[in-house]
Amino acid sequence: MNTEIRIVFLFYDHMTALDAIGPHEVLCRLPGAVVQRVAKSRGPVKSDSSGLTLIAEYALSEISKADVLVIPGAGTATDLKDSPETLEWIRILHTQSLWTTSVCTGSLILGAAGLLSGVAATSHWAVLARLSHYQAIPTAQRVVESGKIITAAGVSAGIDMALLLAAKLSGQTVAETLQLGIEYDPEPPFNSGSLAKANPSIVAPLRARLLSCFEPE
Amino acid sequence: MNTEIRIVFLFYDHMTALDAIGPHEVLCRLPGAVVQRVAKSRGPVKSDSSGLTLIAEYALSEISKADVLVIPGAGTATDLKDSPETLEWIRILHTQSLWTTSVCTGSLILGAAGLLSGVAATSHWAVLARLSHYQAIPTAQRVVESGKIITAAGVSAGIDMALLLAAKLSGQTVAETLQLGIEYDPEPPFNSGSLAKANPSIVAPLRARLLSCFEPE
Repeated sequence: MNTEIRIVFLFYDHMTALDAIGPHEVLCRLPGAVVQRVAKSRGPVKSDSSGLTLIAEYALSEISKADVLVIPGAGTATDLKDSPETLEWIRILHTQSLWTTSVCTGSLILGAAGLLSGVAATSHWAVLARLSHYQAIPTAQRVVESGKIITAAGVSAGIDMALLLAAKLSGQTVAETLQLGIEYDPEPPFNSGSLAKANPSIVAPLRARLLSCFEPE
Repeated sequence: MNTEIRIVFLFYDHMTALDAIGPHEVLCRLPGAVVQRVAKSRGPVKSDSSGLTLIAEYALSEISKADVLVIPGAGTATDLKDSPETLEWIRILHTQSLWTTSVCTGSLILGAAGLLSGVAATSHWAVLARLSHYQAIPTAQRVVESGKIITAAGVSAGIDMALLLAAKLSGQTVAETLQLGIEYDPEPPFNSGSLAKANPSIVAPLRARLLSCFEPE
């Protein structure tokens, strides 16, 4: 009785597992959800989370439509700019998507695909400014909605984004039920989860370490 | 220069992916972390999250020690009580662990393994009372520490638990850095993440649906 909602996750080597699995846990439980995990080729994809390996059941060439497209991030996300076939696949799915989304540095991939020109977007705090390389408007919010593009900040922000998206797709009652289902009533043990809140003595070395993963500006 | 910290995740068919991947994303980044993902046999493990498949690199028989043992939950977690070899493996690792932990209904597995007798513990809110089947003391908190056993509430609570554990293992500066690294400054879009906060009209049908996954009491 539910309308099918086709939710497509891009998987790629060195992606950050939680970037994908946070929203996946929410969105896969939407009524009518059909989830497809897609990578350059079918098979194992090794994340940058101690090599945790996930399986992509589909190759890019097998999937040409999505209602919701989710692009996770990675320390090395911008390496995908050297994969023109992946960027072209993102552009094609975006033309027909209801929502095109990213988590963390996944927004840099959307940018490399040319989808963020003039678009307000967020990313992991350490690389937020780099969105301007793609003519995006860096926006320091946890979730940024610009037309049908929704970008989430670093890693864990994908959960918040997915719950917002759940409400848009299936209504607030479903979204609240999903939030209760994953018992998402966070109690972060420290007040260190964002650039604004963390102690500067923690920010500086982490920023340097994270930026060293990226190519020079 | 860092002391090795061996972190072992139990993977099993039908587990909830985020139960494992939430703490995994935090703990795998601890200085000196050596992460081992273990299942009955090596190879693909199909989660209950739309069939998302993860790889376990080790079989139970190959791993006999852990500093930190993490047991994720599942809608069908108590099926593992019919796997005496898994429960025995958990007991053996627990004898030498620094910390034995669970997320969500993973605490029912610790209970089935006989580790929670007289122990204060939490679980997913919908099955919290079932901990008393195992002589545990059901405790409605997001994270419960009892000696070296730490249990977390439903699904997303594993992230909070892992950050607490990070501070115990590597100090608060490391934990705060990890929290900032995953930008864990949650903004849940609704006030529906716990039994205490959610609208009763949402709680009742979800409780009924979740309990129907479990065997009768």
